[in-house]
Amino acid sequence: METNTATQAVAQAAISQNAITTIFVLAGLTIVAAFIYAAWLAKWVREQKNENKEIERIAGLIRSGANAFIRKEYTILAIFVAVVAVIIFLFLPGPVWQQPNITKNLNMTLCYIAGAVFSAIAGKIGLYVASLANARTAEAAMHGVEPAFRIGFRGGSVMGLLVVGSCLLGVMAVMLLVGDATALLAFSFGASSLALFAKAGGGIFTKTADVSADLAGKVELGIPEDDPRNPAVIADNVGDNVGDVAGMGADLFDSNVASMAAAVVMGTVLDGGTGTNVMMVFCYAALGLLASLVGIATAKVSDKGTPTGALNSSTYVTTAVFLVLTALATLIFPIFQWRIWGASAVGLMVGVIIGLATNYFTDDSKPIVPKVAHASKSGPAFTILSGVSYGFLSVAPAMVGIALSALIAYKLCEPLGPGYAMYGISMAAVGMLSIVGTIISSDAFGPIVDNARGLAEMGGLGEETIRNADELDSAGNTVKAVTKGFAIGAAGLTVISLLGAFMSEVNVSLTEMGRLDELLTGFNIIDPTVFFGILVGGAIPAVFSAMLILGVDKNAQRMIAEIHRQFTDIKGLKEGVEGVEPDYNKCIDIATEGALKELIPAGLVAILATVAVGFVGGVNAVGGYLLGNIVTGLLLALFMSNAGGLWDNGKKYIEAGNMGGKGSDAHKAAVIGDTVGDPFKDTAGPSINTQITVVSLVASLLATIFLNWSIF
Amino acid sequence: METNTATQAVAQAAISQNAITTIFVLAGLTIVAAFIYAAWLAKWVREQKNENKEIERIAGLIRSGANAFIRKEYTILAIFVAVVAVIIFLFLPGPVWQQPNITKNLNMTLCYIAGAVFSAIAGKIGLYVASLANARTAEAAMHGVEPAFRIGFRGGSVMGLLVVGSCLLGVMAVMLLVGDATALLAFSFGASSLALFAKAGGGIFTKTADVSADLAGKVELGIPEDDPRNPAVIADNVGDNVGDVAGMGADLFDSNVASMAAAVVMGTVLDGGTGTNVMMVFCYAALGLLASLVGIATAKVSDKGTPTGALNSSTYVTTAVFLVLTALATLIFPIFQWRIWGASAVGLMVGVIIGLATNYFTDDSKPIVPKVAHASKSGPAFTILSGVSYGFLSVAPAMVGIALSALIAYKLCEPLGPGYAMYGISMAAVGMLSIVGTIISSDAFGPIVDNARGLAEMGGLGEETIRNADELDSAGNTVKAVTKGFAIGAAGLTVISLLGAFMSEVNVSLTEMGRLDELLTGFNIIDPTVFFGILVGGAIPAVFSAMLILGVDKNAQRMIAEIHRQFTDIKGLKEGVEGVEPDYNKCIDIATEGALKELIPAGLVAILATVAVGFVGGVNAVGGYLLGNIVTGLLLALFMSNAGGLWDNGKKYIEAGNMGGKGSDAHKAAVIGDTVGDPFKDTAGPSINTQITVVSLVASLLATIFLNWSIF
Repeated sequence: METNTATQAVAQAAISQNAITTIFVLAGLTIVAAFIYAAWLAKWVREQKNENKEIERIAGLIRSGANAFIRKEYTILAIFVAVVAVIIFLFLPGPVWQQPNITKNLNMTLCYIAGAVFSAIAGKIGLYVASLANARTAEAAMHGVEPAFRIGFRGGSVMGLLVVGSCLLGVMAVMLLVGDATALLAFSFGASSLALFAKAGGGIFTKTADVSADLAGKVELGIPEDDPRNPAVIADNVGDNVGDVAGMGADLFDSNVASMAAAVVMGTVLDGGTGTNVMMVFCYAALGLLASLVGIATAKVSDKGTPTGALNSSTYVTTAVFLVLTALATLIFPIFQWRIWGASAVGLMVGVIIGLATNYFTDDSKPIVPKVAHASKSGPAFTILSGVSYGFLSVAPAMVGIALSALIAYKLCEPLGPGYAMYGISMAAVGMLSIVGTIISSDAFGPIVDNARGLAEMGGLGEETIRNADELDSAGNTVKAVTKGFAIGAAGLTVISLLGAFMSEVNVSLTEMGRLDELLTGFNIIDPTVFFGILVGGAIPAVFSAMLILGVDKNAQRMIAEIHRQFTDIKGLKEGVEGVEPDYNKCIDIATEGALKELIPAGLVAILATVAVGFVGGVNAVGGYLLGNIVTGLLLALFMSNAGGLWDNGKKYIEAGNMGGKGSDAHKAAVIGDTVGDPFKDTAGPSINTQITVVSLVASLLATIFLNWSIF
Repeated sequence: METNTATQAVAQAAISQNAITTIFVLAGLTIVAAFIYAAWLAKWVREQKNENKEIERIAGLIRSGANAFIRKEYTILAIFVAVVAVIIFLFLPGPVWQQPNITKNLNMTLCYIAGAVFSAIAGKIGLYVASLANARTAEAAMHGVEPAFRIGFRGGSVMGLLVVGSCLLGVMAVMLLVGDATALLAFSFGASSLALFAKAGGGIFTKTADVSADLAGKVELGIPEDDPRNPAVIADNVGDNVGDVAGMGADLFDSNVASMAAAVVMGTVLDGGTGTNVMMVFCYAALGLLASLVGIATAKVSDKGTPTGALNSSTYVTTAVFLVLTALATLIFPIFQWRIWGASAVGLMVGVIIGLATNYFTDDSKPIVPKVAHASKSGPAFTILSGVSYGFLSVAPAMVGIALSALIAYKLCEPLGPGYAMYGISMAAVGMLSIVGTIISSDAFGPIVDNARGLAEMGGLGEETIRNADELDSAGNTVKAVTKGFAIGAAGLTVISLLGAFMSEVNVSLTEMGRLDELLTGFNIIDPTVFFGILVGGAIPAVFSAMLILGVDKNAQRMIAEIHRQFTDIKGLKEGVEGVEPDYNKCIDIATEGALKELIPAGLVAILATVAVGFVGGVNAVGGYLLGNIVTGLLLALFMSNAGGLWDNGKKYIEAGNMGGKGSDAHKAAVIGDTVGDPFKDTAGPSINTQITVVSLVASLLATIFLNWSIF
């Protein structure tokens, strides 16, 4: 069997050299095209009208606040990355003093740093363009929905194209320059490190500011939302950008790299030097980027259309183009297999289905949101209970969908030979993430138009403009719920393939050490070390979420105290005396420092638990640990994101005049639900993805160490 | 190796016949002693003073309400049991028309019915005695805490002794009369069927009544709690009995039978006809019952002691006596092994540790409750967020504890030979459940003194009496949180061994069919059918919980409508005109019918999902499904029980005068938290145990069918 495969491989290698060159060129050209298009879009956004002085002033405050956060975050991140880099250099893939030469460890270290830097640069530029786009979108909304939509969406698209382009560039560069799949895991871990800070840190920041601004401003002092007297108001707007634009971008960068890394790790083992399966990963990713380019370029609010329709059709266009292009590639390149195309198509379709299911549970035109709004009439306890219940129910379609897509992908690819089945699952994840460029664009559109709406109000652009901005904002919210479901689904499939990658890594290490009789064929549930790992891993997402939510809580207490201080100490602030301004930066500082301070213990718990489980039960326990982490992580991530979205839209549904409308008891109850949902959906829920990825990568990187030192 | 074991087994059989006879006699005598002691306690409780007419009248209403519920429940249960019995007769262990004779199927059917009937009788008698004890406890509280404690605890002990005694009797009878471990699974399934109705149905009943009485009475109409004008007030008190006494009893009967069944199934395979390992299960269970007898008999509030202290010391006495007795048995009987004693000791110790951890998170003398109370000062959203966070954190010690105890038990028993490791885990579960007689006694004490407190107030027994009853009530609440943690921990270990039992059943079937090359050695996470099962199984506890909570919600809406109707239709009711009484029974009927109506779909979803997964992915998918179910089931059960207990005690902490005391904003927020926590801790949380057990047993019973028909 093995000789047979080897012979075939050599034959294939001869045929496929052309194909490989073609794919490299194609992928390179796509990346260049994406960067050029992103640059053109950024330039175009910059050139749009930006004449209202007051808007420009406030937008400037938001921009500088976001920059302050990013600067602080990147400073701390640099320290973190430096420490981890030293650890990697000393110990990975093996102790540096035992290596024949230090190149391997050096490569790992550099790849790790590169992963973090690539993600950071993409995030920073995207954030910059988004913060330019908000003011211009607000002004464009004076002339209608369509021109405002175009600026908002193009602003978001810069982020989408940069993230996906730099992701593909980074992964290909690592494989070209280092040529080692393990180094790719280090690159992926770098991206995850950044995502952990960006998503969880940004999540704590944004909800700290949101909750504090509401509680101290609206509730206690009775001043309206977005009132410039409120010292937390700029921090609140900054939060939208750092949480949603930078955070979600880093999160999807992370998932995207991780899914490609897992597929490449398994593809490398299958390839035996020919590179065909690895090339397939690059080809699919490149075609996904190309499809996103088309989807982004064609997004447009037609005469009779809505912004939501435009965003959705852009997603559908991307999906269709991707399926057609990859089918063509499979036709043209003899090294490609239809079964693998099938696996990635299944992944993509399931991604869309999960998005639709999320929509069912969180969109106010569907039956669930009105039910929660109705329950609010009986008081806040019923808002919470019904939201929790429907949140729990919403978990089922996504989990069953992920389960089925993994099963179908596996069974489709199993006949291709040993190892292809798991590779099929990883290609399903690559397929699901193929349209991520469009997804990020839609997602970054949300906070841009949200900011624009606030700016239109603060800048006094009139009723008509605010109504237009409102329409865009509502489209942004609907799409956000869907993309969040999509992100979690994609992460689900990705981490399954990371579990496969972990096993590959263990077996590679065992082979290198000559311990061939210990080669893993899987992780047996009945093995008590595996079971031990499963239960401990299952507890971690709950602990991680709890620490983040408590972090928001503690941080908000600090910020509220600061708001009180400013209203006491700064004379004339409360009364709105001309020229008296709050100290916005102080609030931004508190949110920033608190976010990073609260985040670090949560991240460390997850990482140290992985290490502890590895030292107690070895690689078997770690395999179980990853599984437990995936199962409860998916459950809690879906539950918290969906329940949060549901409460948010339930409140908006009541505010639109249902169940007694604004100011009714039902509305008060719904506001409480929304406050509970805020850290659920914007802090803990979406951070769990990153937590799972970080833990999976730590496990893969430390595989050799766990093989050599463990109690059981 | 195998011949060696067989020779040893024959030799052992000769030595051990004496030991087996001794154990049978010992176990039989213990059961008789337990029943006699229970009868004496029941008689003693009956003979206590019961002179206050008003109290007796209200107690009579509660008693007849509980009977009405039980009658209705048992009627529906009888239909359910009949339908399942027919299915079992037709198909299990194999299609009846393919069997050489129908005895096997008939035995299975009869054992199933017996399991349900045994549990039902124990529940019915325990409930009867508890409903006698409440009035008498109230009167005794006039003379001090000690005499009242004695009546309350002895009333609860009747339930504890009956449950454990009839459980051991049933299991031994099945093994003596039928001698087939699979039939024991049918017996266990019968007990689970009842537990599902009693625990989940009772849970929906009790929270429907509680929430409706509070919402329509206290909040809307402004009449005090336990006011006899409220049509739901009797239903509320009935709920305490059917939820906590009957429900918790059935739940622990179920866990206890299941843990013994799992140990016996695995022990039978190991024994090869000698019966030594099976006897060990019976011996440990009998010694546990004996230890509980001692623990119950010695429980007493000393001069300087508190009721909580008395309940705790009774648990510690039982634990110590059990450890000493089993150590002695291991010394005396040559067939017993010290390693297995170690496994069961580890199980028991972990049970105690889980109880203490639960106590840390839910007792108001520990730091967490005051923190949640403090968060309530910022409003109800913070009550909810902090409760959810600490609820999530509270999951970790229990899950790690269960994981460690399973690992240690496995590793301890592994050297005894193949198969002993899983058997060791099942003996850890048996060890953990050994003290269940005392646990149920403490647990049933709670609702008795809770009722007694209400009766003392309604019967006008004066300040001093109410204060005494309050002290007992508070002890009941503290202990309840601990026993609930204990019950979940025990269920956790039990279902792990049920997973082992499922694998045993599959292998027995495969052996009978001659498909020896397919024998299972476990379930591989990397196998996509297993993984598919894991994700689907992981979603089920969330769906099941959601359906129960929504059931409480819907049912409460119906009951509130009825309360409104009575206040409108019955003239003079609201004003409290002498002689005008509400129609209490109507509310009891609504709660009863609604509870059973809402419960059935939830139970069916869990069962049908198991069947669907089995037909899609076969036994491998089912193995994964059980694992996923266990992991997220434990997580959600612990989370909901602990968060609920935390909110409850947070409210009480504020009512005791902290954070502004009763009527403050913090108190209002805490009341909302408590209302959310009610269905968490009394409906969904503790029902998940039963859901997991039911699903595990369905899987084991249908193993042969899944082996023959599945898509993948």
